[in-house]
Amino acid sequence: MSLTIGIDPGSRITGYGLVEQRGRDIVFVGSGIIRAGGTKPIEERLLAIKRALDAVMERFRPTALAVEEIFMAKNPKSTLTLGQARGIALLVAAEAGIPVFEYSSREVKSSVTGAGGADKSQVAAMVGRLMRLDHEPETEDETDAIAVAFCHAARSGIVGRVTR
Amino acid sequence: MSLTIGIDPGSRITGYGLVEQRGRDIVFVGSGIIRAGGTKPIEERLLAIKRALDAVMERFRPTALAVEEIFMAKNPKSTLTLGQARGIALLVAAEAGIPVFEYSSREVKSSVTGAGGADKSQVAAMVGRLMRLDHEPETEDETDAIAVAFCHAARSGIVGRVTR
Repeated sequence: MSLTIGIDPGSRITGYGLVEQRGRDIVFVGSGIIRAGGTKPIEERLLAIKRALDAVMERFRPTALAVEEIFMAKNPKSTLTLGQARGIALLVAAEAGIPVFEYSSREVKSSVTGAGGADKSQVAAMVGRLMRLDHEPETEDETDAIAVAFCHAARSGIVGRVTR
Repeated sequence: MSLTIGIDPGSRITGYGLVEQRGRDIVFVGSGIIRAGGTKPIEERLLAIKRALDAVMERFRPTALAVEEIFMAKNPKSTLTLGQARGIALLVAAEAGIPVFEYSSREVKSSVTGAGGADKSQVAAMVGRLMRLDHEPETEDETDAIAVAFCHAARSGIVGRVTR
């Protein structure tokens, strides 16, 4: 079984989405967001993300983790904060002993919509259509997490295991 | 008892240093570096840092953690990588339930040498002199970790608990 968790880390909201390859199909399994509490000290937010992701890993037991290659924020402070949250997502993968795969934003958009330059609403529309979600994603973070998981599953199906 | 761990996080080498306030004195307790393995995937390096820091926390049971405010790397990729390692250090503090204090590079240098613009060799010389280290720090990361711990202990002694 090949079950991919996609994670869109953020210090305030972290999205996650799980998709499974079943033969030639890619099937939606679950998704959600983690609200880390925007006003708490950063270390407490990181701990909240860690605990919530641990619970998701425990529940679904994914076999691979996919994240977007970093989008460099305009502002170095945001890149740093994003890096701190992303470190927690990568740690969770390493603790679970599953491999991490990174895809550029263009690769994700292209995989979901066929166009690397697609805008966010197109990505959201195609994620909804391709994945037959059981609920409307709460935020963009959730949609993006499902999209990167889909990207990994789609590429793995075609080209075998993707090397980093 | 007030025992501060200073951490200088890095994806290749993470330094740590512990200092204790004993009355008006600040006493060196221990220090070292964690080599995370520069050629391994980042998630494995983060896990190596996490495990090593967990062992240090378990051994010394510090009551506060001090880190330098981020130095923004020239290159956003480095800021991101640094952020990922820094996230692990902050997580470790939150898991241990101890507060995190941040100091600017100028504050640390000023606290150790009396001059906010001191160079690295002056900081290293003063850390050695003030702290009566039991060994020569292996790398700058270790010196810097001891320095930020010293800074926290020195300031806490004078002004009481520092607010962030």
